[in-house]
Amino acid sequence: MSSHHIVRDDQEPALIIANGAPCDDELLGQLLEWSPLVIVLDSAMERVLDLGIKVDVLLGDFDRNFDAEFYKQTQYPIEIVHAPDQEKTDLEKAFDYLIERNIPAVNVIWATGRRADHTISNITNIVRYRNRLKIVILDDHSKIFQLPQKFEKWYPADTILSLIPIGTVTGIHSTNLFYPLQDDSLTIGYRTGSSNHVLKDGLVSITHESGDLLLMECFD
Amino acid sequence: MSSHHIVRDDQEPALIIANGAPCDDELLGQLLEWSPLVIVLDSAMERVLDLGIKVDVLLGDFDRNFDAEFYKQTQYPIEIVHAPDQEKTDLEKAFDYLIERNIPAVNVIWATGRRADHTISNITNIVRYRNRLKIVILDDHSKIFQLPQKFEKWYPADTILSLIPIGTVTGIHSTNLFYPLQDDSLTIGYRTGSSNHVLKDGLVSITHESGDLLLMECFD
Repeated sequence: MSSHHIVRDDQEPALIIANGAPCDDELLGQLLEWSPLVIVLDSAMERVLDLGIKVDVLLGDFDRNFDAEFYKQTQYPIEIVHAPDQEKTDLEKAFDYLIERNIPAVNVIWATGRRADHTISNITNIVRYRNRLKIVILDDHSKIFQLPQKFEKWYPADTILSLIPIGTVTGIHSTNLFYPLQDDSLTIGYRTGSSNHVLKDGLVSITHESGDLLLMECFD
Repeated sequence: MSSHHIVRDDQEPALIIANGAPCDDELLGQLLEWSPLVIVLDSAMERVLDLGIKVDVLLGDFDRNFDAEFYKQTQYPIEIVHAPDQEKTDLEKAFDYLIERNIPAVNVIWATGRRADHTISNITNIVRYRNRLKIVILDDHSKIFQLPQKFEKWYPADTILSLIPIGTVTGIHSTNLFYPLQDDSLTIGYRTGSSNHVLKDGLVSITHESGDLLLMECFD
């Protein structure tokens, strides 16, 4: 059954497919399992079509001779959102669109790889949506999200956890990490908490006082 | 002629092959053309061997049952640098090694892609080597380096140039960019100068007063 026959309550995370490197089919399949609202950014649509996914929203500035209207028939029903604002990336515009629709959470794939400027902007810009949209960026080696000031989650021993400050983050405390943090500060470019890992099966807690802190669950 | 027969003056940029996603053979070939000193990080060695490249230095903590000694014969002569410091990444240790040898510049490949924590750390950590080592990170879509306070270079029209602040950068001025900067500030996560481009064939100048500013020359 294709996703547009599903009655959604819009409380499940939506899925944004951005324009970076594609991920494994397995990750894509897992994320599609719950029939999320699927938003595709701009010319990524050409690559998504080949995968046979039903797309709900196609969003972009369509500034590279890209004919969005073509998809009105092939993907009926589909919402085409023309978003020409040059001050924002297509990914930011998609976040704004979800906030407008009161959708509380989103998973994002294809947001990393290929151009490094896109990768670093896509990852770091999620901090400006704190408290407005729960964003998780996923690729074949990483799961990335912003930490609330108090964070607690169960992890198996040896899970790789990287703490990446976007700017400077102060007053960081952790429990059950191999390299513990105790009232530590981290600053991007100078001191990050990359490649830490979980000490033993159980709860990991990470708290911080100020700043924007990303957690990356990574695997080789 | 393999590179170990070349007499080097060590003023040419060295080449570090890190442990991320591989690049196109064409980029690799261009960088090997001048017979640089080739440093391979840790288990990337297994992937590099398949390419038939002569490696000069193998550096890492070798903590994952990796037998560096094995390469002493197959890559003779090769320097094996065992660098166990857990406070630094292998890439940072390789930068330290080059500074110690008074080599002034380095190109880095395979430093992006795969794990997002490695990608973002590798890119942003170059700022701590300002004035000590001229570092350029390259992949198939990007060329990344830190800007001096006054930067000027000739570019063809429409070249994509992204200004990525590592932290906050103030007093930025530009000429010949499509989105000009005039005494502007940029802050990672909140306001970046991603996806700008060159207005017309000619010199582009970018100056800034304080902070760490990366330039990314990108192509799709």
